[in-house]
Amino acid sequence: MAKGKTNISVPGFLANGISCGIKKGDEKDLGLIYSTVPAKVAAVFTKNTFKAAPLLINEERVKKGMAQAIITNSGCANAATGREGHRDALIVSGALAKELNIKEELILLGSTGVIGKRLPAKKIEGGIGKLVKGLNEAGIEDAEKAMMTTDKYPKIAIRRGVVGAKDVTICGIAKGAGMIEPNMATLLTYVMTDAFIDAKALNTVFHQAINATFNSISVDGCMSTNDMAIILANGMAGNNPLEKVQARLQRFRDMLTDVLMELCQAVVQDGEGATKFITIAVNGAKSKSDARMAAYSIANSNLVKTAFFGEDPNWGRIIAALGASGINVEKEKISLSIGDLPIFSQNAPLNFDSGKLQAIFLQNRIEVKVDLGAGDKSYTVYTSDLSHDYVKINAEYST
Amino acid sequence: MAKGKTNISVPGFLANGISCGIKKGDEKDLGLIYSTVPAKVAAVFTKNTFKAAPLLINEERVKKGMAQAIITNSGCANAATGREGHRDALIVSGALAKELNIKEELILLGSTGVIGKRLPAKKIEGGIGKLVKGLNEAGIEDAEKAMMTTDKYPKIAIRRGVVGAKDVTICGIAKGAGMIEPNMATLLTYVMTDAFIDAKALNTVFHQAINATFNSISVDGCMSTNDMAIILANGMAGNNPLEKVQARLQRFRDMLTDVLMELCQAVVQDGEGATKFITIAVNGAKSKSDARMAAYSIANSNLVKTAFFGEDPNWGRIIAALGASGINVEKEKISLSIGDLPIFSQNAPLNFDSGKLQAIFLQNRIEVKVDLGAGDKSYTVYTSDLSHDYVKINAEYST
Repeated sequence: MAKGKTNISVPGFLANGISCGIKKGDEKDLGLIYSTVPAKVAAVFTKNTFKAAPLLINEERVKKGMAQAIITNSGCANAATGREGHRDALIVSGALAKELNIKEELILLGSTGVIGKRLPAKKIEGGIGKLVKGLNEAGIEDAEKAMMTTDKYPKIAIRRGVVGAKDVTICGIAKGAGMIEPNMATLLTYVMTDAFIDAKALNTVFHQAINATFNSISVDGCMSTNDMAIILANGMAGNNPLEKVQARLQRFRDMLTDVLMELCQAVVQDGEGATKFITIAVNGAKSKSDARMAAYSIANSNLVKTAFFGEDPNWGRIIAALGASGINVEKEKISLSIGDLPIFSQNAPLNFDSGKLQAIFLQNRIEVKVDLGAGDKSYTVYTSDLSHDYVKINAEYST
Repeated sequence: MAKGKTNISVPGFLANGISCGIKKGDEKDLGLIYSTVPAKVAAVFTKNTFKAAPLLINEERVKKGMAQAIITNSGCANAATGREGHRDALIVSGALAKELNIKEELILLGSTGVIGKRLPAKKIEGGIGKLVKGLNEAGIEDAEKAMMTTDKYPKIAIRRGVVGAKDVTICGIAKGAGMIEPNMATLLTYVMTDAFIDAKALNTVFHQAINATFNSISVDGCMSTNDMAIILANGMAGNNPLEKVQARLQRFRDMLTDVLMELCQAVVQDGEGATKFITIAVNGAKSKSDARMAAYSIANSNLVKTAFFGEDPNWGRIIAALGASGINVEKEKISLSIGDLPIFSQNAPLNFDSGKLQAIFLQNRIEVKVDLGAGDKSYTVYTSDLSHDYVKINAEYST
């Protein structure tokens, strides 16, 4: 997803990714993002009851509104690890603060991998010297690689544009293949920007942009213990300050949304074993919540997902999944299209060309459009199919 | 599941199953259950918005409390077929009423197969003569076979016992492999009994028994358009009448629950591609609804299901799924055991023997026990794993 290999950098940010021995071989498993000055921070965390230790620490730290570094390991989630897991995370954070010579409370932590295993804190500690020494302006790609688990390719998106009379850069990296579902979309997403922005405004636009992007995707309906999205804004662009309700704040939000949309679509496309990118657009709902429930009922149906994988134009499963959503709808008013082909309306199938439908199912990107005929609210969800490889990947993950 | 091939019969009931040409080859695709006298009836239907045409007809007919025949085809669900589907179902019902020489309103209809395709009513009509001619006391197994779709083996359970001073028989048959989820458990279940029972009492105990059995299973979290359970009680046992709040009604309910439990466990065991039978028992909940949500959150997690299939003792996924259930719990009070092995308690993993856990994951029947530490309510869900074959079966279903 990187727009060319060159030029993935953000003024004032250094990064690096190394192997510290958590994973086998010399696969990168430890990444660092570092702003040369303390940055404004905003974050979104999973709503899972068993939030991983690093997230619990971050939740406290981001309350103060400032951060300077994010260190992330793959190969171990440090979730469901109790007090020991908490202590392990603090060992990492303490060692990094010392090495970077910054306040420990400016350090944020991320972990991804197997749940319930102790974090190899000593291995991480042992790697921190090398990690910090190697920090460089072009290190974002290495930091991204270090947090990949079952991802097939790295996910980096970058936008540059004039905001508040200066050139501003927004660069995001994301990790996540399985366990993709909103609240938040079971993955790690870090965004770096040099924009100069008010802390409150940053928090507002980041939540808005996440809701419009990562909270609208689903791969397997599972919400992880480790999902989070963090944005650091170090202000080095020196733009006119971005505050509430300004055209330039709007411009910044649009750029940010654009970055996050590219990343979240890349996450779906790289969904574990995914072979299709499926858009479920529900319109005509009485409420946004109805539209959302209907869209997710379709997106999370294993029967729908396997039909897409099998390129089997079994559209009735979409109707069945919609009917199982639990929302109150009048079935006579519902209509369904797949691609541009109207399939079902007034509670009966239409006379569509089944050859055309088959052709649509053979495509890699498929759009399912549902109109509930009940109002003007809508919701769109992006999802993937369910393939043999999803089962293969997930049956063999921890062993 | 049949307890021996012989003796699967219920006094006063005849049955048959034939091939009428809906499916390829000479696979049975049309089944009939017939009581020689009108029987009391009770039924439970799917809550899917897009209930199939036969179910909409049945809903009206069972209101009168009496029925005499159930005709069922496989190979076509007659769901999402609009007014034409309704007319198709009535063609079948009319033809059967004529052939059996009974009132049409005593006939119930079942269909299973692909959603959204027109019912081949002419083919069914053409088979009805042969179907009725072949009715016989030992025909229940043939009727059951005629409604199988992706089922690997037939599901029949029978119990005989003294109820109200007479020998009473309860025999149930079930179809269902995919789309297994409560409300109701996406399948067809027909129960025949010669008990003499009050219509209201029959309705009450049938709902109770279904809730305790079929509404506690899940294969893939999908609720179909065609699920229903029907019981016919023709009274031919001549027992003392079963009415409200009697020991003998209780005895009848226990026998009925027993029959349904055997069937619903068989359905899970034969879940599409299933290799494991998994019991998720949640105890110590503040409310039954909490216990239920927690149990289903685990049972429906694709990550949990694939770990069981892979015999990968990745217990952290169970904790993650529990944490994603949305119920309000104190994580410090939650404990998890798998088999008899305590795994997690007081928000931390216990020092368990990982070899023992691996050995448990190798078993075919696995019990997951969660205690929420919040009250005395509980809920148990039966489910299966998610295998390559689930994907294979469902990717190639309609084509």
